Parts: sequence; structure tokens; C-alpha cells
Amino acid sequence: MKAMINIKLLKNRRKKLAKLINFPIVLWSGKAPSKNFRANHYPFRASSHFLYFAGLSLENAVIRLENGNLDLFMDNPHPDSTLWHGETPSREDISQQIGADNAYPMKALKDKIEGVASIAVQDNFTHAKQREILQRSLSMKEELKDIDHQLMKAIITLRLLHDEIALTEIKKAVNVSVQAHKTALKSTKDCATEAQVRAAMESHIMSNNMTCAYNSIVTVNGEVLHNETYNNELKSGDLLLADVGAETALGWASDITRTWPVTGHFSSSQRDVYDLVLAAHDACIEAIKPGGEYREIHLLAAKVIAEGLVNLGILKGDPNTLVEKDAHAIFFPHGIGHLLGLDVHDMEDLGDLAGYEEGRTRSDRFGLKYLRLDRPLKSGMVVTIEPGFYQVPAILNHPKFKEKYYNDVNWEKLKQFSDVRGIRIEDDILVTETGAEVLTKNLPTQAEEIEEMMS
Amino acid sequence: MKAMINIKLLKNRRKKLAKLINFPIVLWSGKAPSKNFRANHYPFRASSHFLYFAGLSLENAVIRLENGNLDLFMDNPHPDSTLWHGETPSREDISQQIGADNAYPMKALKDKIEGVASIAVQDNFTHAKQREILQRSLSMKEELKDIDHQLMKAIITLRLLHDEIALTEIKKAVNVSVQAHKTALKSTKDCATEAQVRAAMESHIMSNNMTCAYNSIVTVNGEVLHNETYNNELKSGDLLLADVGAETALGWASDITRTWPVTGHFSSSQRDVYDLVLAAHDACIEAIKPGGEYREIHLLAAKVIAEGLVNLGILKGDPNTLVEKDAHAIFFPHGIGHLLGLDVHDMEDLGDLAGYEEGRTRSDRFGLKYLRLDRPLKSGMVVTIEPGFYQVPAILNHPKFKEKYYNDVNWEKLKQFSDVRGIRIEDDILVTETGAEVLTKNLPTQAEEIEEMMS
Repeated sequence: MKAMINIKLLKNRRKKLAKLINFPIVLWSGKAPSKNFRANHYPFRASSHFLYFAGLSLENAVIRLENGNLDLFMDNPHPDSTLWHGETPSREDISQQIGADNAYPMKALKDKIEGVASIAVQDNFTHAKQREILQRSLSMKEELKDIDHQLMKAIITLRLLHDEIALTEIKKAVNVSVQAHKTALKSTKDCATEAQVRAAMESHIMSNNMTCAYNSIVTVNGEVLHNETYNNELKSGDLLLADVGAETALGWASDITRTWPVTGHFSSSQRDVYDLVLAAHDACIEAIKPGGEYREIHLLAAKVIAEGLVNLGILKGDPNTLVEKDAHAIFFPHGIGHLLGLDVHDMEDLGDLAGYEEGRTRSDRFGLKYLRLDRPLKSGMVVTIEPGFYQVPAILNHPKFKEKYYNDVNWEKLKQFSDVRGIRIEDDILVTETGAEVLTKNLPTQAEEIEEMMS
Repeated sequence: MKAMINIKLLKNRRKKLAKLINFPIVLWSGKAPSKNFRANHYPFRASSHFLYFAGLSLENAVIRLENGNLDLFMDNPHPDSTLWHGETPSREDISQQIGADNAYPMKALKDKIEGVASIAVQDNFTHAKQREILQRSLSMKEELKDIDHQLMKAIITLRLLHDEIALTEIKKAVNVSVQAHKTALKSTKDCATEAQVRAAMESHIMSNNMTCAYNSIVTVNGEVLHNETYNNELKSGDLLLADVGAETALGWASDITRTWPVTGHFSSSQRDVYDLVLAAHDACIEAIKPGGEYREIHLLAAKVIAEGLVNLGILKGDPNTLVEKDAHAIFFPHGIGHLLGLDVHDMEDLGDLAGYEEGRTRSDRFGLKYLRLDRPLKSGMVVTIEPGFYQVPAILNHPKFKEKYYNDVNWEKLKQFSDVRGIRIEDDILVTETGAEVLTKNLPTQAEEIEEMMS
């Protein structure tokens, strides 16, 4: 609650919104969900749309925006609450802190909702309240009221291009995450389990009073893309994949992945594939510029990976033809990255509305269907670049894939790479007016640098 | 998911339930709530009642119990899920692991719900599903269907007295928490902030593949009873209060508080009050025995604290009279402890139904209204003992309290204790057939031992 807030820049966001829409809007912050009983709740995390305009994480609060003005609706803490939670700022204090134009108790909200647009929050308790107060549905799945849809598009227009507050916060999150990864590299030799490496990383984030932007992945089974268990011991010969990113107190995310050998030394097969993934990573970052198409960056990664796998003897044939038939996706099944901002997959609560340029939809091609972003790049966007190589049993052993790609893969040769289960290298990139700034540049990517840092 | 499960003991629980009720029951495990978008969820934590009979944390699962038999309802993972989550056990695998008698897909549930009792889960999404499938309400607040109430009482009867699985798990959680506190004591001199101490403690828990049973309290403002911020620097003269407990993978909790001087040395005023809180702590543990009343333990703590505060010159008058008028509660406003089990406040999702013996209700006396447990103690119960001393501004400056207790407090003398904002000492106690076993006994409580461990 003590974060410094730049009211002038916050008011700019509110004014910019007023230029895009001509109706009032109401945004809820949400409420921490209960875990096993009401008083034992998960840590509160405010809705990102609320955070964007309010600038502060406030539980059980609502803001109403109209013509650039912000009204805050929240109740003062119950008098008994001071016993359990200490003195907390009053509505008036908070109203000043965030530069609200008016502040009201929550009960006043019901008289200010005529003609407002809104967006559903994630927690079902508050979502039910939203429906009750607005007396209509806000679900993404149902036919949206026109103004809700216009609101989403306006917010996307703003949140796609990061202002100074956003970049300052993202860089703070990035710096702490970079240090967390460095801590992991330096301490892996003292760790016996995935859980210990995870603890070393999250401990650094927690020490800095930040939270994790998403559930960490710290695994020797990097081929399980969303692995959230940490039960394995680290064994000589294992690669460890760590996808860990911090989130600041104001809600801004970072998202970084590195993969390293638990012994501190890549085997030659690991090194070959690592260098290939890194080549794809570097080529993609090199190609980022305003006006460029993110989908092309994805296809560039696919091509570099296909070429490299042909050179390693794992894939057979012409790289371009292999990419056209999605053969690269056997080993690189996910997209090259996504938007990053208040959400680690920024604005994914709006489905593909933020990730996909108007008029575009997801491809059903195996090599494209998991691409989360298909827009022309603009200066001010922050995206991740995260190519990978994985040996996913569910793909390699799947009869459909096995049949389709049987002749494209040298299955004997592939056996020589059995110690390469999953590699991903992920950085956070700001699109600038002239190209790209790698926000995560202080964390090494080169295999030699990684080995040196571990020694 | 790899935890070892004692099926025989689990089946005992199911059989014991069948002796207490003569109708079928259905329990839902729940679902991880979304954080800022659907794929970014909080860590899953199954409903405790489900965990008690199923023995394994399974998301989106339901069990039906009748006559000691257990039917499992859950869907196999979607084929696409193997790409993101790897190979996960099938319904049949899990059914074997937990000793289910039958296993069905979720859609079969709707034909097996006639006449079943149930209990509401915490997550609102699953709660809505419960109401939809049962076609009735399960809210605690509304008039309960008779069988739901009978089910609650039967489950309370079982969960009040811990079996071997429970005790083994609670002891595991306790041991990891004890080590976390020791780590904190040893590393405080290297820490500059509350956040760093918290990180050292939670890192130990995480390293052991456990989670926190509740949001940690690690604060120099111990007088804020449920403080969940960690922003303060540690300053010479501060006491640090840490209330941190681990939870095992099967959901069993521990709950430990220690308070120590950040410099490693108590001031004489801190030491005086610390020793007084410890005297209350020791007296309460000494008094625990089967057949004893927990309310009397609470009042014993109140009396020891009142006596000690009179001896220190902070309170004036006869200790018994002071306790009768709740003057001790100015400085010790909360209850002496609570049940501990699958929940850190065990079964608090059932309101006071578990904490309060049938026919008893909460007192509205200032000195008793926050007491969470009022039952005769029985061998097999696990309770916390956690006396404290706090200078809560919301109490000390409250006109009502100020007026009522003006002549009971020596306000001038109290100023000499201004460096004692909050002290609590909390241990986890198993009621045995002959008295009490302090499960947390490996963590020192004596001031000298604390100072020595910090040096």
C-alpha cells in the first residue's frame, strides 16, 4: 500500500480512455478467494483493469470513470478490523492517494450504474455481485453488450502500449526476476531437488516484497510445459528448466525462463540443442521492430529450429517445407511468446481480443494454434520471446503425429538426444521506435556464461 | 500426488462415518480459483472434508460415501492436457491409490445424489455446481437441511480426534515449521527487513515441498494481530513476531509463533513481558489433560497474565477481579488457541459447530468473545496454545475501553514498556491419555535459548 503513485500519469490514462469511449464505465477490484475456510484466504490480487486505472491494489473497491474523472467506491474498514488489521487508510486517504475526483461508500454505487460498461472480474463472488448490481450478464462467453465490447477494445488500445509507470514497474519486476535466476544458477550445485531451487528463486522474489506473477515452473521434466510440481531430485545429466517471474506490488509482471545443466556442464547433445534454441531466440529478437508482424517472428523461430534440427540430423528434408507442414512443432509446439504487462499473458482474461488484431483468429494448424499473439508490433509493446525444444511423449508417441511425421524425423538419431527433454530460453522485450530493447539483458543466455555463473 | 497413502486407515475413517450416519453423502474437492485470468490460477487446495476421506488432493473430483464404501467421480484428463501437464494418473489409477470401491466419470454423479447430505466448499465456482447438481442450497447461513447438519456433526466427531495418518502428517508439518523458525532465528542478524525473514522461513517450507498453512505473519508490529504486510525494516530495539506454519501435501497443518528481538537481545522491559507470556504458555500446557475444559485453559492464561501485569505494575488491583472484568483482554484480546488439523483453525468452515461443544455459544464478553474453542479436551485432539501481550492502539485509545479500564491500568508505568508492541508464543499440543505432548517441543521458548540460537 506504500508504493509511490504518479497521479499525473494515472490521470493521463483516465483522460485517454475518455477520448476512446463516450459512456461511463465501472470496474471492480475483486476479493481474495477463500482457501479452506473464510478467514484463510489466498493472497489478494486486484483485477488488472482496475489496477490500470486506479493504480493501487484495493480489495473490495470499485471505480467509475467518466470523461476522465474517477469516482472511488469503497467502505471504510469495520471498526473491529483495527484490532486484527491495524489502522488502515480511510476511503478519503486512498481517494487522495490515487487522485480520485470523488469517493463514496459502496452502497452509493447502485445509483451510478445507469448506462455503464464493465468487465467481469475473475473471482466468482465479486462476479456475482457485478451481475447483481448491473442486473445483467458480463460473461465473456455470452453475447456481449455492445458497450462492454467497446470498453474492452478501448482498454486494449491503452494497455497494449506501455506508459512510463508501466515500464518502470515492469523493469522493477524484471530486475528482481533476473536476480532470482542468477541466485538459482549460483546455488544449483548446493541443491538436491527441484523444490530447493524453486525455494531459492521465490525466496529472492519474496525478500523484495514481490510475489510470483504466475506459478513457477522449476523442473527437470521441461517437456511438461506447465509443470507445477517440484518433487524430483536433481540427477547428474539432468537439465533444469526454470520459468519464474516476479510481479510488483502494483501488479506488473515479468516472465523469464532459463535452462541449465544441474552439474554445471552441458553434455554435447544438450549443448547442440541449447545453441539451436538460443539461435532461434537471438534471431527473433533481432527481427523485432515496429511494424513487424509477431506471427512472422513465430514463423522465423520455427524456421531456425527446423533448419537447426535438419543440421543436427533430427529432422529430414527442406526446412521451409518442414515448417509448412508444421514438423517443427513436434519439438516446438507452443507459440513464440505473448504480451506482457499487468498480466503475464497480458489481457488474456479477454480471450484473444487483446492478442489477436481485429479480424484475425487463431489458426487450427498444429504449428500455429498455440500462438497467443498475432498483431503488428508497435513501439511501447512488451512481448516475450521464448523458443523451445521439447521431447513430449504425448506428441512423439501419438499415432496421429507419428504417422504424419514418420518420415520427417530420424528416430534413430533422436535417441542420441535422449538427455534433452526440454529447453526454453525466454526474455522480455520492449518494442522501441527503432527495434527492440531486451529488458532481461542482464541475465546471461550464452551456454558458456551460464556454465561460468554456475561454477 | 506421490504421497504414500495408508488405505487401511482411510477405510477406517469411511467405516467410522458409516456408524454415525445412515444416509449417503457426497463431498466435492473444489477447484483452484483464477487469479487475473483463467489459466493463471492460485495453487489448488482441496476441501478438507474431501481430503479427510479421499486422502489425496484431487482437483475437480467428488466422492460419494455410503455404508463405508467410497465411489470416486472424476473425469480423465483431456487428451490435450498431456501436452501441458504431462501424463497424469487416470481415474482408475487414482481409484486404486485411494482405495475407492468404484470410479465413475463426473457425469454419472447426477444419478447418484438422491437423499445425499453434503457440505459447501469454499470456492464459489464449485459451490454453484453443488447447488446445481443437488438442486438445493448448502450455505452455512441458511437453514440447513437436517442431514447436512447431521453430516457436519458426524465429521466433527471423527476429525476432532486424530488418527495415525493425521498425527504423522501434523508432525511432519510441525517439524518443517520448527526448522523454518530456527532458520529465522539464526538468520535474523543477516536480514534487514521483515520480508527477508519471511523469505528465509517460507523458503525452508518450500524446499521441503510443503506450502504455508496460512498467510505468514512476520512483523515488527506484532500488535496488528493479522498483519500480512512485510514492508518494515528491522530496527534495533524491535521485537519480531513470526507466526508461520507449514502444511503437508495431504493438507495437514501446523501453526507456530515465536517472538524475538531483532538484535538478538531482549531489553529488560521486553524480557519482563516475554517471560510473563511464557509463564502463561507453560501454565496452560501444564494444565492440559483429557476431561479438562479448554475455556478454563483460556481463563488460566488470562489469570497468569493479569497477575504478571499486576506484578509489573501495568495493571492495578486483584488479578481475579481484573479477569472477571476482562481487564487482561486489553493486552491479551484473543483466545488462547484453537483446534488444529487439516485446517489451521480446524473445521472453521463449519462456523463454531466444531469449536463449541453442543449447547454452548460464544460469549459476548470482551475477554471471551474471540475464543475459538470451548469443549472438554479429549485424548487425540490437537490444539494450539498461544498467549500474547499486545499494545493495540485501537484498544488502548478507544474511548469505551479507556473509560471502562482507566483506573485498572497504570498508564505512566505502561510507557516504560513502549518497546513491547506485540509478543506471542504459540505451540501445537496433542492431548494424550495422561496429559499433553508438545509437538513443537524442539523449538526453544526460553528467552535465553532464543538469544543463544540467534548469536
